[in-house]
Amino acid sequence: MSARSTLTHTLMIETRDIVIVGAGTAGLSALREVRKQTDNFAIVNAGAYGTTCARVGCMPSKLLIEAANHFFRRNDFAAFGITGAEHLRIDVPAVMRRVRQLRDEFVAGIVRLTADLGDRNIAGHARLLAPDELQIGERRLRAQRIIIATGSRPVLPQHWLRLRGPVFTSDTIFEAPEFPRRMAVIGLGAVGVEIAQALSRLGVEVLAFGSGKTLCGLDDPIVNARAIALLGSEISVALDCDASLHEDAAGLQVHNGKQVVTVDAVFAALGRQPNIEGLGLETLGVPLDAQGMPELNPHTMQAANLPVYFAGDVASDLPVLHVANDEGHIAAYNALREKPTCFQRRVPLTIVFTDPNIAIVGARLRELNAATIAIGTVDFANQGRARIARENRGVLRIYADRKEGLILGAQMCAPRAEHLAQLLALAIGERATVQSLLRMPFYHPVFEEGLRTALRDAARQITARADSDLAACEPVGAPALD
Amino acid sequence: MSARSTLTHTLMIETRDIVIVGAGTAGLSALREVRKQTDNFAIVNAGAYGTTCARVGCMPSKLLIEAANHFFRRNDFAAFGITGAEHLRIDVPAVMRRVRQLRDEFVAGIVRLTADLGDRNIAGHARLLAPDELQIGERRLRAQRIIIATGSRPVLPQHWLRLRGPVFTSDTIFEAPEFPRRMAVIGLGAVGVEIAQALSRLGVEVLAFGSGKTLCGLDDPIVNARAIALLGSEISVALDCDASLHEDAAGLQVHNGKQVVTVDAVFAALGRQPNIEGLGLETLGVPLDAQGMPELNPHTMQAANLPVYFAGDVASDLPVLHVANDEGHIAAYNALREKPTCFQRRVPLTIVFTDPNIAIVGARLRELNAATIAIGTVDFANQGRARIARENRGVLRIYADRKEGLILGAQMCAPRAEHLAQLLALAIGERATVQSLLRMPFYHPVFEEGLRTALRDAARQITARADSDLAACEPVGAPALD
Repeated sequence: MSARSTLTHTLMIETRDIVIVGAGTAGLSALREVRKQTDNFAIVNAGAYGTTCARVGCMPSKLLIEAANHFFRRNDFAAFGITGAEHLRIDVPAVMRRVRQLRDEFVAGIVRLTADLGDRNIAGHARLLAPDELQIGERRLRAQRIIIATGSRPVLPQHWLRLRGPVFTSDTIFEAPEFPRRMAVIGLGAVGVEIAQALSRLGVEVLAFGSGKTLCGLDDPIVNARAIALLGSEISVALDCDASLHEDAAGLQVHNGKQVVTVDAVFAALGRQPNIEGLGLETLGVPLDAQGMPELNPHTMQAANLPVYFAGDVASDLPVLHVANDEGHIAAYNALREKPTCFQRRVPLTIVFTDPNIAIVGARLRELNAATIAIGTVDFANQGRARIARENRGVLRIYADRKEGLILGAQMCAPRAEHLAQLLALAIGERATVQSLLRMPFYHPVFEEGLRTALRDAARQITARADSDLAACEPVGAPALD
Repeated sequence: MSARSTLTHTLMIETRDIVIVGAGTAGLSALREVRKQTDNFAIVNAGAYGTTCARVGCMPSKLLIEAANHFFRRNDFAAFGITGAEHLRIDVPAVMRRVRQLRDEFVAGIVRLTADLGDRNIAGHARLLAPDELQIGERRLRAQRIIIATGSRPVLPQHWLRLRGPVFTSDTIFEAPEFPRRMAVIGLGAVGVEIAQALSRLGVEVLAFGSGKTLCGLDDPIVNARAIALLGSEISVALDCDASLHEDAAGLQVHNGKQVVTVDAVFAALGRQPNIEGLGLETLGVPLDAQGMPELNPHTMQAANLPVYFAGDVASDLPVLHVANDEGHIAAYNALREKPTCFQRRVPLTIVFTDPNIAIVGARLRELNAATIAIGTVDFANQGRARIARENRGVLRIYADRKEGLILGAQMCAPRAEHLAQLLALAIGERATVQSLLRMPFYHPVFEEGLRTALRDAARQITARADSDLAACEPVGAPALD
């Protein structure tokens, strides 16, 4: 019983086993777990229902990219023996209608998850009064456990908000009925790079500005250089620049320190910030960090020793769906039990749905000791299947322990990298080695044969290597015929 | 020393450490291994150089399919917001020129592998005189070891060869400058199904006839039914019929027992037979089976206890490249050593490059005991990413041990099955379970999330299941909050 709650005795205080704050991916994941154990819960949501993923993230962006990539493929049609590509046009308003129509279907499927909850589904802003109490409008809820899953929103400088020229973020761009002739994309993380390429392929002249030297967090210099070159072959890319926006009679201008360019609109992809303002985290009674967050255990999702758990973008540096799902699951699993269970987190995986895909799996290169790893590389320029499909652009690099060959990580800007990255994520999770991966069947002709080339390159640098890809039923290495 | 060879003392007999008969995939794989150990070898090849894969198999067929599928995709363009698809035409002669041009490049790369061998590269038919002696034209070679890798050729009834109307096999179809209006495809294994769909998508009216009840060896009735339905939505498919060919003034006729159809040409895909005629296998001095083959050990590739090894299509029921490669490697590895090493063969994997792909991984359903397995199923109709890409056609089924969840096999006719099958082949090789596969990160939105749906379906039937997909750092399952 907190001191605060005794002051509110004139109001009726509802009691719940669990209150979930936020009905996004993490909150709904928590809800799924909660409903297995109790009916006495509430889920509180501020603003629009439907997850970031479905409303303004993964799903609409993939719909935009899908149309853009199909249209772009016309450039290969003559080589494939298909004539008439010059008659193809992209109907951007139609593209955007499909984006919104399927997005609305995905969102509707999500909204249904809370539609039957009646009074247990509360629309409004929740504010903590204590580690076991919340206020939502006029309602007060006391809870044995609270799960905070309030999500995140795009970072946008206040000044940019006041500009007349359209400055889109991922929250607004999918509402655009069409796009102007010339656009700047500012910020070249996954979202910026995906949208920059898609807009360009839909016919927009795109000028892209990144603040760092890398795209999408790639820290392998060879993969990063290839990704920059491939994106740069389609659009103008300026890196390592501090782009700022200004406006005059001529319209929106991007200043990047060296040049000034005028554009018709801007897509700002500067990252995301957690939604914690007004949440009352200061009432938790534990120290908060510079971002205003309490200490979290990423294996239990518990905040300090409180009956409060965090999940999803609000708690995570990596705002991706499967992570939010896991965190909602972990938070609720633990919130429902007396003693929190420590969960192993999954192998890190990021996929960027550019063409070719960019992907990062397992340990980053900067986390590894260059002296103890082997790096296997494949360039897809001459990979058979990739040549057949005219997708032979890209490079993939695998990092493995130099002694035993344990697969540690990989980065790639490569054809079908979304699939290659999934396979490598499994391999790392199963503690596969270069040698054990080389034992899998590689059908012919598949893109995975490119991965095999990289594995063989790594195998040559590894101490514990065999003279056959195959495993022996009995020890390999009988003396050679003399 | 055989009795036979003493009769030939008047001829000069060359002696070699190893003679490889056949310069296809298996022979060249053996050659790679042989060259690591000895320079005293010969490789003998009859007929065209270049592998079955590169000349008349995987590579040209994938080139044909790639063009066909891109052209077929125009049917989705309106939905994607792309207009003008009605102006697209397929220039089949141009398609076939690209098929042959890239094929010729692939073949040239292979021919180079034997180009620098001088006198050690012998063009001609080899005939065994004894387990350690061969004749090629006027030359006699005595070898410590012989590797037979003579490959296979399409089965074709003698009667069909005498017909005037064009009856193509995979050996001849890629030489066609274009295709007639109406064709029959007879035989619905992987090759027949791939070519039938590709021809149809290139504008040919295709009538397909299969002798069995299944496509491509699928023995999962649900996957097979879906594959038939999907192929049948594009072309006419008649199964379980004994198609025969006849010819009259009207042209080629296919009789299938029930109906007679007239076609302009036939593609016969009746399987392949080993090239063993005239090889002199009867001189090996060991029993031969009904097919004329000696007993082979699939883990050493040795024939009986002879100094003779077999590799590739001539030895295999599964004429696929990676198997031929392995067998060439195993045969040569062992031929070069005093004591043969027994090698574990890879996880069985077949991929058919239809759209959607068909794939078979690991154990067949008929090899499994229905009472001890769980079957997890996913239908891709409502899979998110597949819907976005308009590839939401197909089904995937995973077989796992019902007790421990060990993944045993899978069959699928599903989008991106080539990649899903590769991933599952790795999983089986690493002895992954349903539970350990569920621990991998599934990025969003990916096709692999469909696989996860099937895994979760299987998990529900498995005894050894956890209440979290994630692994605990400490045991999961503390008592729930009451």
